[in-house]
Amino acid sequence: MTKWVYNFGGGAADGRADMKNLLGGKGANLAEMASLGLPVPPGLTITTEVCSHYYDHDLQYPDALKSQVEAAVAAIEDAVGAKFGDAENPLLVSVRSGARVSMPGMMDTVLNLGLNDETVVGLAAQAGDERFAWDSYRRFIQMYSDVVLGVDHYHFEDILEMHKEDNDYYLDTELTADDWREVAGLYKAKTEAELGRPFPTDVNEQLWGAIGAVFSSWQIDRAKTYRKLNNISEKWGTAVNVQAMVFGNMGETSATGVAFTRDPGTGERAYYGEYLINAQGEDVVAGIRTPQNLTKKAREKAGATAPSMEETLPEVFNQLADVFDRLEAHYRDMQDIEFTVQKGKLWMLQTRAGKRTAKAALKIAVDMQGEGLIDEKTAVMRVEPSALDQLLHPTLDPDAIRDVLTKGLPASPGAASGIVVFDSDEAVREAKDGKDVILCRIETSPEDIHGMHAAKGILTARGGMTSHAAVVARGMGRPCVSGAGSLQIDMREGVMRALGREIRRGDRITIDGSNGEVMVGEVPTLQPELSGDFARLMQWADKYRTLKVRTNSDTPVDTKTAREFGAEGIGLCRTEHMFFDEDRIIAVRQMILAEEEAGRREALAKLLPMQRGDFEEIFRIMRGLPVTIRLLDPPLHEFLPREESEFEAMADAIGVGVKKLRQRADELHEFNPMLGHRGCRLGITYPEIYEMQARAIFEAAIAVEKNTGEAIVPEIMIPLIATETELSMLRERVEAVAGDVFKEQGQAVEYMIGTMIELPRAALQAGKIANSADFFSFGTNDLTQTCIGISRDDAARFLDEYVKKDIFAQDPFVSMDIDGVGELVKLGTERGRATKSDLKIGICGEHGGDPASIEFCHNIGLDYVSCSPFRVPIARLAAAQAALKES
Amino acid sequence: MTKWVYNFGGGAADGRADMKNLLGGKGANLAEMASLGLPVPPGLTITTEVCSHYYDHDLQYPDALKSQVEAAVAAIEDAVGAKFGDAENPLLVSVRSGARVSMPGMMDTVLNLGLNDETVVGLAAQAGDERFAWDSYRRFIQMYSDVVLGVDHYHFEDILEMHKEDNDYYLDTELTADDWREVAGLYKAKTEAELGRPFPTDVNEQLWGAIGAVFSSWQIDRAKTYRKLNNISEKWGTAVNVQAMVFGNMGETSATGVAFTRDPGTGERAYYGEYLINAQGEDVVAGIRTPQNLTKKAREKAGATAPSMEETLPEVFNQLADVFDRLEAHYRDMQDIEFTVQKGKLWMLQTRAGKRTAKAALKIAVDMQGEGLIDEKTAVMRVEPSALDQLLHPTLDPDAIRDVLTKGLPASPGAASGIVVFDSDEAVREAKDGKDVILCRIETSPEDIHGMHAAKGILTARGGMTSHAAVVARGMGRPCVSGAGSLQIDMREGVMRALGREIRRGDRITIDGSNGEVMVGEVPTLQPELSGDFARLMQWADKYRTLKVRTNSDTPVDTKTAREFGAEGIGLCRTEHMFFDEDRIIAVRQMILAEEEAGRREALAKLLPMQRGDFEEIFRIMRGLPVTIRLLDPPLHEFLPREESEFEAMADAIGVGVKKLRQRADELHEFNPMLGHRGCRLGITYPEIYEMQARAIFEAAIAVEKNTGEAIVPEIMIPLIATETELSMLRERVEAVAGDVFKEQGQAVEYMIGTMIELPRAALQAGKIANSADFFSFGTNDLTQTCIGISRDDAARFLDEYVKKDIFAQDPFVSMDIDGVGELVKLGTERGRATKSDLKIGICGEHGGDPASIEFCHNIGLDYVSCSPFRVPIARLAAAQAALKES
Repeated sequence: MTKWVYNFGGGAADGRADMKNLLGGKGANLAEMASLGLPVPPGLTITTEVCSHYYDHDLQYPDALKSQVEAAVAAIEDAVGAKFGDAENPLLVSVRSGARVSMPGMMDTVLNLGLNDETVVGLAAQAGDERFAWDSYRRFIQMYSDVVLGVDHYHFEDILEMHKEDNDYYLDTELTADDWREVAGLYKAKTEAELGRPFPTDVNEQLWGAIGAVFSSWQIDRAKTYRKLNNISEKWGTAVNVQAMVFGNMGETSATGVAFTRDPGTGERAYYGEYLINAQGEDVVAGIRTPQNLTKKAREKAGATAPSMEETLPEVFNQLADVFDRLEAHYRDMQDIEFTVQKGKLWMLQTRAGKRTAKAALKIAVDMQGEGLIDEKTAVMRVEPSALDQLLHPTLDPDAIRDVLTKGLPASPGAASGIVVFDSDEAVREAKDGKDVILCRIETSPEDIHGMHAAKGILTARGGMTSHAAVVARGMGRPCVSGAGSLQIDMREGVMRALGREIRRGDRITIDGSNGEVMVGEVPTLQPELSGDFARLMQWADKYRTLKVRTNSDTPVDTKTAREFGAEGIGLCRTEHMFFDEDRIIAVRQMILAEEEAGRREALAKLLPMQRGDFEEIFRIMRGLPVTIRLLDPPLHEFLPREESEFEAMADAIGVGVKKLRQRADELHEFNPMLGHRGCRLGITYPEIYEMQARAIFEAAIAVEKNTGEAIVPEIMIPLIATETELSMLRERVEAVAGDVFKEQGQAVEYMIGTMIELPRAALQAGKIANSADFFSFGTNDLTQTCIGISRDDAARFLDEYVKKDIFAQDPFVSMDIDGVGELVKLGTERGRATKSDLKIGICGEHGGDPASIEFCHNIGLDYVSCSPFRVPIARLAAAQAALKES
Repeated sequence: MTKWVYNFGGGAADGRADMKNLLGGKGANLAEMASLGLPVPPGLTITTEVCSHYYDHDLQYPDALKSQVEAAVAAIEDAVGAKFGDAENPLLVSVRSGARVSMPGMMDTVLNLGLNDETVVGLAAQAGDERFAWDSYRRFIQMYSDVVLGVDHYHFEDILEMHKEDNDYYLDTELTADDWREVAGLYKAKTEAELGRPFPTDVNEQLWGAIGAVFSSWQIDRAKTYRKLNNISEKWGTAVNVQAMVFGNMGETSATGVAFTRDPGTGERAYYGEYLINAQGEDVVAGIRTPQNLTKKAREKAGATAPSMEETLPEVFNQLADVFDRLEAHYRDMQDIEFTVQKGKLWMLQTRAGKRTAKAALKIAVDMQGEGLIDEKTAVMRVEPSALDQLLHPTLDPDAIRDVLTKGLPASPGAASGIVVFDSDEAVREAKDGKDVILCRIETSPEDIHGMHAAKGILTARGGMTSHAAVVARGMGRPCVSGAGSLQIDMREGVMRALGREIRRGDRITIDGSNGEVMVGEVPTLQPELSGDFARLMQWADKYRTLKVRTNSDTPVDTKTAREFGAEGIGLCRTEHMFFDEDRIIAVRQMILAEEEAGRREALAKLLPMQRGDFEEIFRIMRGLPVTIRLLDPPLHEFLPREESEFEAMADAIGVGVKKLRQRADELHEFNPMLGHRGCRLGITYPEIYEMQARAIFEAAIAVEKNTGEAIVPEIMIPLIATETELSMLRERVEAVAGDVFKEQGQAVEYMIGTMIELPRAALQAGKIANSADFFSFGTNDLTQTCIGISRDDAARFLDEYVKKDIFAQDPFVSMDIDGVGELVKLGTERGRATKSDLKIGICGEHGGDPASIEFCHNIGLDYVSCSPFRVPIARLAAAQAALKES
């Protein structure tokens, strides 16, 4: 016969911690604690299979359930020495739901079940406290009526308030036993009036009512929505836990509390928790009374006067500390615990792995390895990679006061304070004067790069998590709050407004890119700590990962940062940002305006030494490691000005009429620049541009090798390839330039020529394209745009709603769309390797820094991921976890 | 031993017509004619395998070649009764290349080979004509020197001119035998001077020199380029034909000519050709003398006085007519023939299938079926589907004089004359006044739809073959010339200029959308003939095809046209064009400007009856057939005005400030509208829009069914689906509307809900999406844009160069990119059908009217293609050919 009900308590249990699927998380852990011999109030767990049966069979329970529950209740009665429904010595129980994973929205708890007009008298006698008994009874009636019978709790709050007013009471503690008896009577009458039938006095009816309520709550809307959003199957079902009541409110030797075995904020190895004397569990959470510290040390540190549990109940505290140690040793992880002390006796009500901050996760993992509790691999698995982000940037002092002006999206982590500027040139000027500035823009464009670089942080009124501002700021490691929708920026007046307040140019603000808050004035920040535990964990991660981690970097500063963060080369060095520097943009524009190849070549000749200089610096920093350089990618019109005034300035600088400039800009205008004349299409139509870039690369590589004696292997990457012909044509040209330069310089360097796979066609044709490629790098940003047909710059308009409606589980620009984009990456990899088994393959989109995407990249056998410098450690850890999960 | 050389002549041949791969086209047909017993000058063919051997073996011939050629030459000598190099009775030969397919760029012909200072005397004696012999000799020296030895022909032309001047000759005919002897001597001297060695007098050296020149010409640049562009393999090689000379210039009973067995322009069953008395073949082609008609009837029709061959050489003409009939009966196709008459004896030099106009192809195919020469299937295969386009539109009278102003792209076939207007509203006004107008725009936008409809033709200065103007014009069947780059349009002054000429508003022009010409004034046109042969061929096509053909149509006029052209339903009815009508655009804009759902619903309520009216009309015309309606697709900003003045007008009409309008337009602006907030994304975020459209569809379907008693099955198509969730959500909404309408009307109609597969992700996820779809329609326009990452509106900038450089064999918006887009279509079809084996699948992109794409659609098992009305016949024929090719 199927076992539908599992008992626990009295040093034994039918279940175990690893039976979460059957008993739910709570039931399994209660069973485990009971087996460990810890003091757990005896109880029973009705399995999740009953829930499934209930829904599969028209809301009917299995036949044997009733008898099994009866037997289990009898076992509880035996263990406790009381009888359910007995007028003299009644057993009271709690009834709680407990699914495989914790699930908000479902019925939570009914306490004190088993009380009625008769048993309440017995309880009073047993407890020797009539007031306690009637108080417990009225709490039960309210809770049961609300949770099980559906009578809104405000009815009962009204009755209590009226009773207090009638009697001139101010606090609940002023009510006497008689008061509570009267209130209980009024409660029952109210429930009867609302439902048209009396409040159930039969304790078994109460019990089955509560059990039924738990199972019913599995299918209420909130629970369904939560399941859908969190990929929880309908089939899993919930368990029901029925457990003997213990009371923390039976006087001054009773108490209730919650605790962590280590500090969940800092990870310090110190018991951490709160308790309340003479209180029920809900009082600690409700915040009506201020809970007291668990340990003396914590009390002293907090400068609190209310005595700690260590001081008031030293004996029980020692028992508790012993339980903490046993639980940690048993579960090998920091535990989150609920307990109750009833008349000096400790009872454990719950244990589970405790939630913790990134800082704590890191420290606990490393400490536990040191303590021999876990091994290195387990330590690596214990830290959420994306949580590392918090550790790599300055954070706001959590104790500082924040005057929040408005909120936007947490676009790039870290906190920064500075004076407000609205213009990138101004940002540069003010930064040169030694001022910290926050660049505030409606949105940013490639022309703001220098301003963003000069600024300590960036704030935009428009744009999503993957807007230009967000992407560039993350790449630079600048904190950024984007899309602060309530912000109105008036550039002309030099003022921005939000929620009726005004911030002028030069005013000081603080932004927190980790949560999106924008604050008035300066908020003190804390600097990150990257040695010690962090370095140790990274070392372990590197030991177990197989995927290489490179960085996306275009500047010496970023390259240096990334190398310090452990980057093993550059996976994407964009060359277009280099074109925006003030001293270059003129030559770039001359090139664009030239009508003939000769004119373009003349302008390119001016750019050559500058571009070579860029590469030399980057090569020197990355020497010994590979550097992938992407040839020019964006459409030429991105380099032309937008504003009328800029056109005039440009006309002066270049010596060409404004009309002609406008005309050329009009000619170059594109309806869909993302799908326009860019990438290798520029290389095909204006081969001289790529030739100049290739020359700069080879000359720089030779210069650095001559200079340092250490070689880098430049990997020249041709963007936006759709056909093999494009690549083979451009490959030929680049090889020709290499030949020329090597001859001129009397020295050759090794190099590779490869391509971005960033169009669906390229992924499909990867087998052919591989013939002309030494490596592939999946450009998953553009691949996402083309595969899903969704513009990164425009998606904000509907993507939020798409995520809310669960059409996408996540923003596909943040975490790779595995079903769509992922299939193309997989297919491209398979087809490319089928042609060339040793083809080096990586990914250089934003996804290269996203843990879930990294796991996917590991699983399909890529060689490396490349991400922005500040995400390099995240990628290293995520890659290690992927490798460990696989093995 | 390998047979490297094949003989023919004297009523027998080693080869056959089906040995083209080995003998080349020319050699195979000469062999075939010889076998048929036709009078073919005897000759030999060196096989294409010799060419391959030559290139595979370091330019060495196979060992046995020499002896095989010698033996074959001996056989020719026997047949002719002359000896190669014999001073008394010399054999002269021609040497010609002959690849599997005709290939410009290669060495063509050397005539009279075998002449030297001795044999020329023998020839003179044999022919009884010294002048003829020396003329032949000097021709040979020039031709051989030029073609084989690489001495430029202008040297010889100079010598001849000088000789004529010195002797006061005006015409070549004035030169005597002595003159030609003197000229021949000068020619030889010149060649010797240029090369530093004498002109070869050994006839075998001459022969092997010419053979080597043919093989070498296989690898000259022009031939290589031609092969690359036409997908001809390097491996195929060329054959060499050596054939005994016959002379059409041996006096008044000699002649030479070219002929077609039927009229290649009209297809009429009448011998068609030209000849010249006393001339060599090249004289007919060179155009120095005017060739005369072949038949008396043709001469009379042309009103010519020079007698026809039928009149001058009646006996030979009768022989020739007999040969024509035998060749047609043998090849069962119209033949293109070259012949020579030497002293009253007919010789056949070439036969091959003749090129013909579309009109002729149609008539010949249908006639030959009637004559029992070919069956229906062969007739269907004989007409190039895309050539039909010429037959469906008015064409310019080929005899009319054309004053060509400029040339653009042949964007939509057909010819039209009318007065020039520069504005769509003006086009409508003038058309209402009964005038024919040509709408001339820099480029068109969706707001020009009414103007394009009112115009007889459209001319734009910008935009490619797939620009808005081109696509819409083709859809409407309006002739269109797009991208006439030299045209400068000054809207303000109402004038356009090209190549120094000026056309003002109201001036009359003519455009020819079949060749891109723009002409000043009116050029008379001929109307198409759609019954008779055309109808017969279409009937046969329908009999053999399995693919259904539907149309893309949004208007009653187009729907009617398409049905007349044989469309079997509508595969794509876009609903957005309906929103641009003057009386609707205001409500559309009100909807866009509404800030809340209520406001949008109010505006939509105004649109509902109009939209319902649109559908009723279309349903009525298409009753009995399916109609696929695509719900709103373009981003909303497409419906807002662009010009400042329009904003003001709109503000007045709607009663909203200009500033607010501008602001909303700015909000809606997108960087990449193609990848933006459009398609089903609108349906998800503004469900009320699709609800209105669904209601209009259901109400219209019920109304038409009540009214006509005949049902249509509306197929509601949701655009731009990327995920199954989108489709299932929207499906639910549409089904809810259906339920409401059916209840209100007390009547239900059958309907289907499906989706466009137009994003790579949708194709990849087709297996899941099929769960919520009753049908798929591949939107290959957008699928091309996203798969290749190429914007249709912007591609003109580089696509030309891409096609020129052979990166794409064809514009991928015109003919489907089978390797990329095609794989997605195939994959989407397979995955969709794996989920739902009876899923109805079609394609509704522009490719639905392209024969190559249609063949692909047939081969992968689609149910239908949908194309613009004027391409429906093309699609029917292409579908039939695909089916016949397969079987």
